Parts: sequence; C-alpha cells; structure tokens
Amino acid sequence: MPRTELEYPKEPYGTVKRYSPRASYALRTIHTIINTSPILHVSFNDPQSPFPTILPMLGQMGSFSRPSADEGDVLDLYLHGYVSSRLINISRHQPSDASSASTSTSTSSTSSPSSPLPGLPVCVAASHLDGLVLALTPNAHSYNYRSAILFGHATLVSEPAERLYAMQLITDGVVPGRWEGSRVPPNKGELSSTSVLKVRIATGSAKIREGPPGDDRADKEDKNVTGRVWTGVVPVYQVLGEPVAGPYNEVAEVPGYLGEYVRETNLVTKEAAFEAARKVAVKKGGEDE
Amino acid sequence: MPRTELEYPKEPYGTVKRYSPRASYALRTIHTIINTSPILHVSFNDPQSPFPTILPMLGQMGSFSRPSADEGDVLDLYLHGYVSSRLINISRHQPSDASSASTSTSTSSTSSPSSPLPGLPVCVAASHLDGLVLALTPNAHSYNYRSAILFGHATLVSEPAERLYAMQLITDGVVPGRWEGSRVPPNKGELSSTSVLKVRIATGSAKIREGPPGDDRADKEDKNVTGRVWTGVVPVYQVLGEPVAGPYNEVAEVPGYLGEYVRETNLVTKEAAFEAARKVAVKKGGEDE
Repeated sequence: MPRTELEYPKEPYGTVKRYSPRASYALRTIHTIINTSPILHVSFNDPQSPFPTILPMLGQMGSFSRPSADEGDVLDLYLHGYVSSRLINISRHQPSDASSASTSTSTSSTSSPSSPLPGLPVCVAASHLDGLVLALTPNAHSYNYRSAILFGHATLVSEPAERLYAMQLITDGVVPGRWEGSRVPPNKGELSSTSVLKVRIATGSAKIREGPPGDDRADKEDKNVTGRVWTGVVPVYQVLGEPVAGPYNEVAEVPGYLGEYVRETNLVTKEAAFEAARKVAVKKGGEDE
Repeated sequence: MPRTELEYPKEPYGTVKRYSPRASYALRTIHTIINTSPILHVSFNDPQSPFPTILPMLGQMGSFSRPSADEGDVLDLYLHGYVSSRLINISRHQPSDASSASTSTSTSSTSSPSSPLPGLPVCVAASHLDGLVLALTPNAHSYNYRSAILFGHATLVSEPAERLYAMQLITDGVVPGRWEGSRVPPNKGELSSTSVLKVRIATGSAKIREGPPGDDRADKEDKNVTGRVWTGVVPVYQVLGEPVAGPYNEVAEVPGYLGEYVRETNLVTKEAAFEAARKVAVKKGGEDE
C-alpha cells in the first residue's frame, strides 16, 4: 500500500472540466467506485460501425502479479466477456503483447497513452446514484452521485492462471466468498470457453457530488419561491432483497457469507445515501450549481 | 399510438449476437428502459483523444413535433448537458441541420445511418440491475437485468421552444410533476445557459434476462454439488428514501406529487425485482447460460 495517495495523470481527454472541485484523480477513489459498481459500461470503436459502441459488462480491478495490492495501488481492470463477444473478437485482432509497442521503456500502467500501446482503446464508466437533488429552479436540480471513468487498452488474457485469477476476482466481486461457495475449480471446458479482457489503465478520473441543493441567492431570498417550492434531497440507494432459492436448490439455509453480505450492503448503502443528502457543504460561497 | 409494435432495424453494429432470445428491438421496450434510467451513459469520439469517451448524463425520449407521442412511437432522445461541456462543444462543431445531409429524402428517425446524417455519432446505454443470479458454477452466474442501447446523431437544440420542451421533459423525468412544482418558467439567463442535445436515433436494441439460475445438467445431477452450493437469485432494486429537507427549505410538508412518486416507485421496483427472480423460464431446454 502506498504511503501517499497515487493520482492518475491529468491528460487533456481525461480531465473533468466542469465543477472541478468535485473531481478526483486519486486511484483509491476511482478504483473503489469501479469495484463497487455491479455493472460497468465499456465503450469501444468497432471498425465496422459508424458509431461508438457501449456494452454493459462485469469487471473488477486487481493485480495478477501482486494479488495483495489494494485499491490505492496501480491495478489492471479485468472484464468478463459476459454480454457480447463483439468486443472480445475485436480485441483478438489487436496486437496482444508489448512487442508491438513503441520504443518507450515505460512499463507502468499509467504510461502516456500517446505511445502506441498494444490493445483496443476503451473507456470504462461506473456511476452510482445517491440522491435526487430537488432545488428551487429546474436549472439548479442535480443528483448526488459518485462516477468514475477509466481510459485504457484492452487485450485478451491468454494465460490460464491469470484467467482463473480474474474469474475468481470477478465472481467474488458479485458476492464476496462466492467463488469458494460454488463448484470450483472450473473444468477445462469452462476455463477455455471463458474470455477475460484485461485493460491496462492509461488514466482516469472521478466526480462526486453530495450535499443539499444549492440555488442562486435571488431565488433563495424570494419568499414567493421559497414559500411554495419544497427543496431537499431524495436519497437513492440499491437494496439487496431476501435471497430467493432457485428450482433445483437443495441447500435449506442461505449460506452465512451471503446473508451477511446482503445485510451489510443494505446498511452501508442506505447510510451512505442519507449521509450524502445531509452533508454540509464545506466550501464558502454557497451555490455550487 | 401505433397499433402494431414498431421495431428498430437490425443493423450489423446494433444486433445482439449472444443469447439472442433475450434481445428485443421493440421501440416501446427500449424507450421504457431508457426513460426509467436516472443516469444514461453517452459515448462519443473526441477528435483530440485516442480513446472513446463516456459521460454520465440525464436524458428522456420525446417528440417536440408531437408531444402526445408515447414510448412505442418514433422519438428523439434529449440529453441535458449536465456533466460536461465537452460533448456540447464537439456537437457545436458538427453540421447542425439537414442542409448538409445526403440527398436521401428520408426524414424518419430510423433512417439508415449509412447516409451521412448531420450530428455527432453517439451511443447511449441504460442498464437496470434486477438481481444477482447465483448458480452452481461461477460460469453459470449471471444477473437479472434490463439493458438498452441506442445509436444516433447528436446535435445542439437551437430553438428556444424546443429547449424549453426538453428541459421540462427531463425535469419531469426525475420526479413527475417537479417542473410545475418548482420556480418556472426559467428566466432568460437560465434558458440561454442550458445546453440540450437532441439525438436522432438510427437504431437500438434491448436485452433482458430474468428468472432463476440455469446450470448444466451434469452439475444439477451431481448431489455433491447441489447438496453444498446454494442456488437462487438475490433480487436487487433501487429505493427512494424518505425525502430530506434542505437548509433553506420553508415548505413544511413534502409535496403530494413527490411523496406519491417515492411510494409508488418503491412498490413497483421491489415487486419487479422479486417477480424477475421467480419468473419461470418458458422456453424448453432448461439451460440458458
């Protein structure tokens, strides 16, 4: 674990331009938002299409070479080829190792993307909605949210051991402990039929908004407006419901790791949404919209 | 309202290739998933960047020329330039009206994207997570979800009346009735400082997964596995919490339209997640993974 918080480089394409006090480039902040997002949106360009494409995928950040690395460290993003094989197929036709890279000697995941790194250029986004911010005027309406994007190069993981590492990482990302709680290890067929993409991160950023509405002074001082328009935050959070056993389930009780995960997640997410709603803005000046 | 359900054309870049029984091209299905998604992920290419970019934005589908159109009709997507002005700036430099379009006489929003329509090519994605599908093996794990993507061309809305229409559409998309419940109409400054993007849709698709896990027969018939691994679905749904009044709120009671929206949304989303978890697969053959 690094002693100081690492930050991603501020590349022109990756810099948050608006409301920049809300921006963060800290690896820990960004990686945590990505890892707690059950669905990631992955964008890439298909040479056959006039449009960029977005696929919803599962993913987790980790380090195969140093599995003990935590969320504040330099990590790779592993994506499961869950939703479509199009991205996998395009990645297959990208140069897949460093031999085609530039003469640059940089091996860091945060090396400049201007050097022609191998892999398919992708953008990955994760967004958590924490509240509806209802202000006096439509323009000052907002959301409380935590969002992150990462830019990087995706290649197919060819090494079986690394694919196995990523499969466990992603399965335990859905419910911690689920890997050991299911029928493992995968057999040969399962292992060979699973495609895992690894994204080497070039840079990324996060944006976080919390706190109550922030209207313009003119509206806040207009009694005709404040006397009529309710202002505040509707906290929003995701709930895990009571597990529903499937048709061929033969285990009478919901396993401990699962029950605990459901209870803890529900406590944490609800509390975080209410905390964000009640947060007092620290900065001076009031309005943030 | 059309008598038959309209469908988007199946373009090669927009066709769902995997698990195609889960795919839908019906406008109503796709538009409903988009309109009920509080955050949309919008992807585009910035000529300055080696990567595609994704921005989280607010948006709603509507028809300015026929406001009574419903979700099964041909609609445009209106996006609020909420999160970043980068997309707005790039769109500003795109040809913004039909004068630069091809000689094609098609005026339909679903016209072929191979004709050089004006605007910035974008992809818009919305994903709702409805459940964690926990199967016997990691490979058969899945989510219950509803996801949709749209492909289209984005241009800035220059007409003030259309911008006002879109602002109301998007505000009421956050909480129905909120537009009238807030200080409206926007003043001149608010109206001119708000950027609205309109996406003319080329095509789109949806994917929906519901129901219990579907493992391979070999695992389902292995008592060593079924006797040890719990299988089923953890329903997932978004909850709107009790509204939290802001620091300058002077309206004692939460307004009726807001309280009702919170109550109704919570009922519907919870029920939908449990219903998806319990859904019996209609198709024969069992396994779907």
